[in-house]
This record gives sequence, C-alpha cells and structure tokens, in this order.
Amino acid sequence: MKKGKISNAVIRRLPRYCRYLSSLHREGVERISSSALGNNMGLTASQIRQDLSCFGEFGQQGYGYNVEKLYQEVSEILYLHKQREAVLIGVGNLGRALIQNFDFSDSGFHLGAAFDIDPALIGTEINGIPILGALALENYLAEHDVAVAVLTLPGRYAQGMADMLMDKGVRGIWNFTNFDFEVKEEHNDVVVENIHFSDSLRVLSYQIGE
Amino acid sequence: MKKGKISNAVIRRLPRYCRYLSSLHREGVERISSSALGNNMGLTASQIRQDLSCFGEFGQQGYGYNVEKLYQEVSEILYLHKQREAVLIGVGNLGRALIQNFDFSDSGFHLGAAFDIDPALIGTEINGIPILGALALENYLAEHDVAVAVLTLPGRYAQGMADMLMDKGVRGIWNFTNFDFEVKEEHNDVVVENIHFSDSLRVLSYQIGE
Repeated sequence: MKKGKISNAVIRRLPRYCRYLSSLHREGVERISSSALGNNMGLTASQIRQDLSCFGEFGQQGYGYNVEKLYQEVSEILYLHKQREAVLIGVGNLGRALIQNFDFSDSGFHLGAAFDIDPALIGTEINGIPILGALALENYLAEHDVAVAVLTLPGRYAQGMADMLMDKGVRGIWNFTNFDFEVKEEHNDVVVENIHFSDSLRVLSYQIGE
Repeated sequence: MKKGKISNAVIRRLPRYCRYLSSLHREGVERISSSALGNNMGLTASQIRQDLSCFGEFGQQGYGYNVEKLYQEVSEILYLHKQREAVLIGVGNLGRALIQNFDFSDSGFHLGAAFDIDPALIGTEINGIPILGALALENYLAEHDVAVAVLTLPGRYAQGMADMLMDKGVRGIWNFTNFDFEVKEEHNDVVVENIHFSDSLRVLSYQIGE
C-alpha cells in the first residue's frame, strides 16, 4: 500500500467510502462498478478510480469492486482494526452522548476511560466506561498508551488541557470544544481534528438561501 | 453580490473565514492582508482572493481587508442575519447539549422549540427553550415558518421523521442521527447537512498512522 503525499480531499472521502461500502455489504451487495459507487456518492467513476489508485490497485476492469473486500481494504487504510486507546475529557451532555451512543471501536479506537471534575460522576460508570477524576488523568496517561483524547470540556479549559495532553505524548486530539487551541512547535506532529458544529449549520444557512 | 455556480469547497470554507475573522475582530485587529489571512487558515493568498471573488470585490490592493467589514460581508453571504426559525427533535444527551451550549443565533437561526416523547420532559424548558410533545410537532409546523429541523433522535426514526418534515415544508435538515435518510424526488430542493462524527474520527485515525 503506497502512501505518499495524498491530498486532504481524498483522505476526507475515505470514511465516506467506508460508510457506504459497509451499508452495501449489510444489504448483501457483492460487487459494484465505479460508476454505480460514484453515482451514490456524488462523484464520477474516474474520481473514484483516482482516489483509490492513491492506495494501490483495487477492482477489476469490467467486473468492478468486490464490496466486502474493498470495505476491508479501506478500513485497513484508515487503521480501523488498530483499536488504539482513547480517553474522553469532560462528561457533560456532549461527552455523555458520545460515551453512550458513539461506537468508538467502529472508528479504530477503544475508549478506556472518561474524566471529569464533578464528584457526583467520579467513580461511576457510563455504558461500562469508568468516569475518573481529572486529577487522575496524568497518572492514567503515564500508565496507558493513550493515542487520542476526546475534548468535550468547556472551551476555556481547552488550551491548558491540550497542552498537557500533548506534553504527555497523546498523538491526536478530537476537539469538540469549539476553541481552536494552539499547538506548540515541538508538538507539530500531533494531529488535531476540530468539530465545529457551527460550520455545518452555516453551510446549511447558505444553501437554504434567502 | 453574485452567486452563480460556486463550488462546494468554497462554500465550505466560508464558515471558517467567518470564525477566523470574528476572532481577529475580537482581538482588535483592524486589517489583514490576504497572505496573512491565508497563512492562518492554511490557504494561499491567491486562493483567498479567488474564493472571495466569487461573491464580489473585497479588500484593496496594498491595503488588504478591513477585518470587521469582511466579517460582516461573509456573514451576510451566509445569511447569518436572517435568524430563521429552527426546531430540534429528540432531547437526549446530544439534543440537550445543543440546546444548552450551541449558539443557534450565531449561525443564522432562532431555536423556537424542541420536541420529545418523554413525558418527564414535555412541558419543561431547557435554557429557555420549551420542550413540547412529539404529537404537537405537526401543529407547530403548521403555525410557524420553520426553516430548519435539527434531528437528534435515534437513527431508526430518522427516515419517517425526515419524510414528515419535508412534506410539511421544512427547507433544511441538520441531521445528527448518523443515518443517511433518503430524500424523495419531490423534495430535492430540501437541503440536508449530515454530521457524521465517525468520518472525523476516522480521518484522525488515518492521520495518526501506524
């Protein structure tokens, strides 16, 4: 599998391939042509072929793609089988929604623990995930190989928390705080994914028009 | 303001301009060059100029952009001043997180009411927003000019709810259910924005690498 300089746009399409192929597989579809795949995803057949060609050779001229195999391959490209360790920080409504309803394992991670400062929450479990005190976090990071931290705490704590997490070797931050924290030069290998709900609603506002 | 065929990529960058200009304005910055704006957003100066040229003429050669003015102009392009009516359907953890913490007015909408089937919630208020029974929804839609519905109910109800909302004239659906519902031919002017948390986490998984 070659992985050179792959454009951000292609990378961002991979999870959509994954979702779509998974639903085709669930529906019992065994193979699909690049044009049918494209139609359903709002892409051209040649765009699909180009996207996938960044990662190797998939599909066969005149046959199309084997749905299950391509799904497995795209999943591997995304490292979804790795099941790396994640923690969640801030068990408010949004944190709780993710703990209860979001399938981390389906996206390549195992949620090991969540952290909060509320004494009423500390020591409890939600959906089998232990809620620990914020003071236990540094210790937890020292004892576990935590790849990703999910930030669902209030935005005013985002910068301080992100700095600490990066200092302790966390490799990725999934940031729901709506605060774009700064990343120090020495941590520029840390990956940050910001979820800005407002960006999505504003696009909707634009598209609805006058 | 011209608005012909503007690419999806440009449209998706507009909210980022908006966020960034708003934070510059809060910091007291009065003007910025297209290259400085680009640097901070990971774009080239010429990309910035091209993006904005889709909507008219902004900025001045050798002076750059007036931050406050450009912020106002981008906000208007996105219709953020319109304050159209929105409802939210499904007051679980995620719905509650949005009602309590998300600033709808900042993204062009006024959240008028939320709907749920839980008798313990119906008739209460969260953050000043009345929670009404799901049975009251059709009536509410008939009496209010609801532009957008926010779907935060379980995915298995998404298709039925979306069909009803579109039949009743809702123009946009902000869909958090992780279920890509189908849109009937007769409703193909309805705008749907799907939020798939997993897409974002999977991109993070890819970027972290092995």
